Amino acid sequence: MQLKRTDLAIEAHEMLMEAAQELSGVSVQQEDKGGAHIARVSIETLRAQTQMGKPIGRYITVEFPEADLSEGDAYEALCKVVAEELSSLLSLQKNSKILVVGLGNRNITPDALGPKVIEKLVVTRHLFSYMPEVLSDGMRSVCAIAPGVLGLTGMETEEVIRGVVDKVRPDAVIVVDALAARSTARISATVQICDTGISPGAGVGNKRKALDKGSLGVPVIAVGVPTVIDAVTISADVLESASKNGEDTAESLSAALSEMDAEAKQDWLRRSVPGELSGFIVTPKDVDLLLDRVSKLVANGINFALHQNLSFEDIALYTS
Amino acid sequence: MQLKRTDLAIEAHEMLMEAAQELSGVSVQQEDKGGAHIARVSIETLRAQTQMGKPIGRYITVEFPEADLSEGDAYEALCKVVAEELSSLLSLQKNSKILVVGLGNRNITPDALGPKVIEKLVVTRHLFSYMPEVLSDGMRSVCAIAPGVLGLTGMETEEVIRGVVDKVRPDAVIVVDALAARSTARISATVQICDTGISPGAGVGNKRKALDKGSLGVPVIAVGVPTVIDAVTISADVLESASKNGEDTAESLSAALSEMDAEAKQDWLRRSVPGELSGFIVTPKDVDLLLDRVSKLVANGINFALHQNLSFEDIALYTS
Amino acid sequence: MQLKRTDLAIEAHEMLMEAAQELSGVSVQQEDKGGAHIARVSIETLRAQTQMGKPIGRYITVEFPEADLSEGDAYEALCKVVAEELSSLLSLQKNSKILVVGLGNRNITPDALGPKVIEKLVVTRHLFSYMPEVLSDGMRSVCAIAPGVLGLTGMETEEVIRGVVDKVRPDAVIVVDALAARSTARISATVQICDTGISPGAGVGNKRKALDKGSLGVPVIAVGVPTVIDAVTISADVLESASKNGEDTAESLSAALSEMDAEAKQDWLRRSVPGELSGFIVTPKDVDLLLDRVSKLVANGINFALHQNLSFEDIALYTS
Amino acid sequence: MQLKRTDLAIEAHEMLMEAAQELSGVSVQQEDKGGAHIARVSIETLRAQTQMGKPIGRYITVEFPEADLSEGDAYEALCKVVAEELSSLLSLQKNSKILVVGLGNRNITPDALGPKVIEKLVVTRHLFSYMPEVLSDGMRSVCAIAPGVLGLTGMETEEVIRGVVDKVRPDAVIVVDALAARSTARISATVQICDTGISPGAGVGNKRKALDKGSLGVPVIAVGVPTVIDAVTISADVLESASKNGEDTAESLSAALSEMDAEAKQDWLRRSVPGELSGFIVTPKDVDLLLDRVSKLVANGINFALHQNLSFEDIALYTS
Repeated sequence: MQLKRTDLAIEAHEMLMEAAQELSGVSVQQEDKGGAHIARVSIETLRAQTQMGKPIGRYITVEFPEADLSEGDAYEALCKVVAEELSSLLSLQKNSKILVVGLGNRNITPDALGPKVIEKLVVTRHLFSYMPEVLSDGMRSVCAIAPGVLGLTGMETEEVIRGVVDKVRPDAVIVVDALAARSTARISATVQICDTGISPGAGVGNKRKALDKGSLGVPVIAVGVPTVIDAVTISADVLESASKNGEDTAESLSAALSEMDAEAKQDWLRRSVPGELSGFIVTPKDVDLLLDRVSKLVANGINFALHQNLSFEDIALYTS
Repeated sequence: MQLKRTDLAIEAHEMLMEAAQELSGVSVQQEDKGGAHIARVSIETLRAQTQMGKPIGRYITVEFPEADLSEGDAYEALCKVVAEELSSLLSLQKNSKILVVGLGNRNITPDALGPKVIEKLVVTRHLFSYMPEVLSDGMRSVCAIAPGVLGLTGMETEEVIRGVVDKVRPDAVIVVDALAARSTARISATVQICDTGISPGAGVGNKRKALDKGSLGVPVIAVGVPTVIDAVTISADVLESASKNGEDTAESLSAALSEMDAEAKQDWLRRSVPGELSGFIVTPKDVDLLLDRVSKLVANGINFALHQNLSFEDIALYTS
Repeated sequence: MQLKRTDLAIEAHEMLMEAAQELSGVSVQQEDKGGAHIARVSIETLRAQTQMGKPIGRYITVEFPEADLSEGDAYEALCKVVAEELSSLLSLQKNSKILVVGLGNRNITPDALGPKVIEKLVVTRHLFSYMPEVLSDGMRSVCAIAPGVLGLTGMETEEVIRGVVDKVRPDAVIVVDALAARSTARISATVQICDTGISPGAGVGNKRKALDKGSLGVPVIAVGVPTVIDAVTISADVLESASKNGEDTAESLSAALSEMDAEAKQDWLRRSVPGELSGFIVTPKDVDLLLDRVSKLVANGINFALHQNLSFEDIALYTS
Repeated sequence: MQLKRTDLAIEAHEMLMEAAQELSGVSVQQEDKGGAHIARVSIETLRAQTQMGKPIGRYITVEFPEADLSEGDAYEALCKVVAEELSSLLSLQKNSKILVVGLGNRNITPDALGPKVIEKLVVTRHLFSYMPEVLSDGMRSVCAIAPGVLGLTGMETEEVIRGVVDKVRPDAVIVVDALAARSTARISATVQICDTGISPGAGVGNKRKALDKGSLGVPVIAVGVPTVIDAVTISADVLESASKNGEDTAESLSAALSEMDAEAKQDWLRRSVPGELSGFIVTPKDVDLLLDRVSKLVANGINFALHQNLSFEDIALYTS
């Protein structure tokens, strides 16, 4: 069973359903709320973990129309929905201290979600020390860092974050990162929140570089937004669509294609990707604009989850 | 005969050669110079124009290794090569006035070549009026504009540029734009210079929106760098590579694929692209960095072609 | 009477009042609305024009608390206030066509207001031609351009805009530009709207480079936000404050300072500014963040003034 | 003795000389090399430390003409000069491991030197682990981080860096930061390198938040470029210049001003600065462009100092 090229548990689940695989140990609950569609996937057994390619834990996706990403009532309602779902996975006390980590490379737009979110957070840890009078009741101690990526720092993210956690001693860590998805419709239109942290290698050992409770010693919640699709997924989609295009010129090809099941086709394509494609990504043309908007949504989702009784005006004040 | 998804004449030529098509009326001359590979394609007949999908004219590509894009001697030599090839297509007099137009959307990184080049030009038209004493012998009157894209301005680029040309009366126009290529190896590693201007619809009428001698009344030289590949090209590459992957699981598919010729396959794929892919592009991960570097190369190629006896230190002075 | 270093009519008025100058031909009306303070200054006579250093016309300033600049109800109300005041100076018909011009250099943050506003406008002129079905009733034909600055284009802004106006034939032009103010409290916290266009040299001839009804042939409304203070203003403020600091060490200096009136002092300082200061500006530290926010406010003020029955969600849709 | 508003030791020295103060325990050596002017200031006694307002140590400034900041031979020579001076303060072994820390807020242009330099470094620590074959002889293990500022992270920089140093165990730390200077001529035209690290409070205790050998346990070299001047300095310059402007209108003021010595005047102004000015800075208009260029110079100075036998082409390869 090999790695699915999606970071979304809900898509991994859909793919297994499409392939009509027998699957136990996974529960999915769906709900519409505040203009958004929410799916809560729970992976409960080791067997399900292997099948899904994701570690045991809870995964929540909030899907929303693109128009809800900017100003206006729909946007504000959506921020609150993200905050509620995030709160449901965090178990915060009144005095909990939280470290938010923004992963990714700020110079590669589709990878810049983490650093962009960090810049929009209501960060308060220093205010508790130096200016407690500007804090209102219900606010928690929040600190944040965007540590940069291995290629630019020469250090594993996990080394840096463990160093910071040793000094700061937070009660929980929230890790924000850009994700890959299978479906174009979900790009920049979905937030996934999960309680498993981030484990490169998807639950298959290699604890050394994970950012999770095992490596950091405190609960780690991951928040992500899909911003890229990989070249194989795109190719498979084009091929799938083409195989239904019953033109004469391609009759035997269409026939051959319809004989293979979707997963086998994708595996075969993946094993055949030309090496020179590895440095390329597939993103929406207007990814800069989308990232600006979706990072504001994620940041405000976190702001409302960590601080109580905050208004949008308060956020403007604390982030200026 | 349908549109090839490459803006490079040299690739259009390669594709026809691969397809073993008979082709007359096109000459190709190749040369290695200053670390770069230069190909000069000349389209000479209407029939060749139709086959190549590009208007009659001269097309020069300068290909170079990525490492030559930054500082150092190789970079400086490359700037001079681009300047020489550009000069060969411009027929400038000592007093010629030139307008440089940077096309594209500066907020979509792979489309931002034009605006980025404009910012690095040695612009002098106003100095001729206000501060002629700072100009040295051999400098020409250069002005520049990045007019923005239809979606952001609501105006056809050609409307704006004709308005500007009416006021400024240049002797020649240089148009800079990002291009699409077929080959990953050419992305950000090739400059194409041609004397046909830019004609949406590739030589097939629709003069109204072209930026060429026909619409602007003066010679129009286009300078471009490929920065994107389209999803179909990527899919076709993956499929082509897969079809050579003779795994058992995909035997009949591989067989069917090898029966179709490359062009037929690509056409079939193109006709089958799912609509939702239309807003997506395929680019190098580090497209921001590449664009910064390649736009400096193009700008300095233009600077050296338009102004004589300029040093890199002079450019630094005039562009600060 | 020499140029005041403020672009705000309300500050020019305040300075004359402070200097206890007799002033006729200027009316000022003040109002509080939607959390903002509105001042409407009307310069009515040539004598007042000379005293104020601004051409005859109507000048409206909307002042607001910084916290209202981001999301939330206060921000949305403020956008509507700006739209209403702007509408009061525009006399639009149902079918009026409007060109919005964003002045300034996008690479110098405090000067980038114009280009940043342009990017956030609901631009529709091309939709009227190509996709009228996506337009709703009450929307007008809007086009927009950020022409760049003389130093980067080599062309007078007025040349470029006249070229564009010749092709596009708008019924009105809105010009957006960053301004200088005298008071730190007004920086990024005030929008000025006036019906005089932009006239370098402040009403004192030199029609050639103005962007006003005289040069463009249609009504020109200017919208601006102060983002910089000049070095003399800062120096005068420090000196004024120092002169009230009656320390022994500076007794005779304080005495000498209090003998001079404010205007004489400022004139004397202005005549004495060291030349090397001319390339320097004084701005808020967080000018990048402030510009992002205030340009959104101005853009939405324009959006609501030009298009009727638009919601924030609509704006998100049309600007993505 | 109060804090001078310059971070440059050479300016602190100049101010003491101007004030004709007796000064021992400071040596200054000057040299012209590769188009640059080099001054080496050595503060040797506690008394000199107090007078200079800077801790005991060595301070090197490299001053250069602005035109040397871009491409070309002068630029390349300048990079080597910075590298040589930096090497003279570092005592590196063949196997030394170095951590480079980029201080400052990347969203406030004049404060972004540190983060911008980090992005242009040849970082290798991860390559020693994962791809030693791409490293050539003479390269050292370099890692880098831009930790962000207190207001955005909620953490003292020193906390974060100590956490990282604990994990990474470098043999030396280089800290890069933007500085304030007194002279407009030095802005973006000077690099200061010193072996004292960075100590807020200038040698006056408060070891807790310093980034120096005391707090980090390894040698700390600071590299800085002045990018801002403070409002008082500007005001004092304008006032000084005005006091020499012997106009009748300001006769008694000029007389009073010439009675005060420069330092007393500046002190008096500093004590009188209006509070609302504290959020404002004075920078060159084209600070964005200047920062891009000067950060490349500093980065390459560090690259050449840390890695031997590197060419500009190598740097392009390792930083792409």
